[in-house]
Amino acid sequence: MIDLYTWTTPNGRKIPIALEELGLAYRVHPVDIGQNQQFAPDFLAISPNNKIPAIIDHDAPDGPQSVFESGAILVYLAEKTGKLLAASGPARVAALEWTFWQVGGLGPMAGQLGYFALRAPEPIELAIDRFADEVRRLLGVMEGRLEKVRYLAGDDYSIADIACFAWTQAALETLEKVQPDRPPLPAVRAWLQRIGERAAVRRGMAVPKV
Amino acid sequence: MIDLYTWTTPNGRKIPIALEELGLAYRVHPVDIGQNQQFAPDFLAISPNNKIPAIIDHDAPDGPQSVFESGAILVYLAEKTGKLLAASGPARVAALEWTFWQVGGLGPMAGQLGYFALRAPEPIELAIDRFADEVRRLLGVMEGRLEKVRYLAGDDYSIADIACFAWTQAALETLEKVQPDRPPLPAVRAWLQRIGERAAVRRGMAVPKV
Repeated sequence: MIDLYTWTTPNGRKIPIALEELGLAYRVHPVDIGQNQQFAPDFLAISPNNKIPAIIDHDAPDGPQSVFESGAILVYLAEKTGKLLAASGPARVAALEWTFWQVGGLGPMAGQLGYFALRAPEPIELAIDRFADEVRRLLGVMEGRLEKVRYLAGDDYSIADIACFAWTQAALETLEKVQPDRPPLPAVRAWLQRIGERAAVRRGMAVPKV
Repeated sequence: MIDLYTWTTPNGRKIPIALEELGLAYRVHPVDIGQNQQFAPDFLAISPNNKIPAIIDHDAPDGPQSVFESGAILVYLAEKTGKLLAASGPARVAALEWTFWQVGGLGPMAGQLGYFALRAPEPIELAIDRFADEVRRLLGVMEGRLEKVRYLAGDDYSIADIACFAWTQAALETLEKVQPDRPPLPAVRAWLQRIGERAAVRRGMAVPKV
């Protein structure tokens, strides 16, 4: 059994999607970040950076194993099951490249765009333009990749697709509010539809129920 | 032989440090991002996100293997050699947690702080405060970790320390310019000194020579 601590955000959705894809049994513990529940001492003990998602795997070989950081959890679950991440070779490299690309690029830049475009106390054009331009560039990089391959790691669906799915949805939605000349990105949109139609993705995107 | 494409930035320094620690033979190709050399077609072919660092490993089992994204390169080199990242268990989880923490948190937030505090065309207090507060929080999380363990993954030096080293130096330096009430962070500073004294780290931090 895996305890999942998560919320209704793009990072939070990655892990229920992976758990659903892998068919692992889990219990959901919603951590309402609007209520600052991520600062509760019990949660900080497993996620010292006070961010969701986090898990505790009660069936780990060395005893209960907690994991924080969505990228680390995806790698952990993939290696636990031997699925969604090739054990070696070019497909493993590609899945790790695009997972780190999401964690270090698309996620933080789309997150800052969301803040400055939608939630900041005052509109700051320099910051909105900076992050909108960077998100547009990143989605263009993804478009170039998906023109050539079906999934981000190549032929096979992997943790890289799971890492990017909800962030790409959110990034496109915010970008279209800020720069209304809708970027066409046909390969990205086709990939979003392909991933979004997976039953496990639909189930995972509904976790946690609130 | 490994071809290393890099520059004098915190992300760029991670890989020469790792290569020096691992004793792998490599050739350095400086990519001057001040001259936009990261947009050259030859470089984009191995690093489609137009960012340094990237490598080509000519001794990979399936033929020459290119890798982009500094986090993916660190994992690749560690798995190639069986060093700096435990093969399984809690030490592997911890090294991946803190590597992803740097890639998704400390790196992008310190990067944005550097931009808004030092390079933006106008000083925007809201943005400077936002990123300075977040960098201070992140360094506080690291302090809490390093009060309890010698290295970020626990007892053993790992790719997590290499990922964080140059970013922590840069983050502290920028933060002290912006919020001059110098954060004490004794455990972080002792760790910086411990890592910085390693011969391989000193050699790696001097790559590329420009």
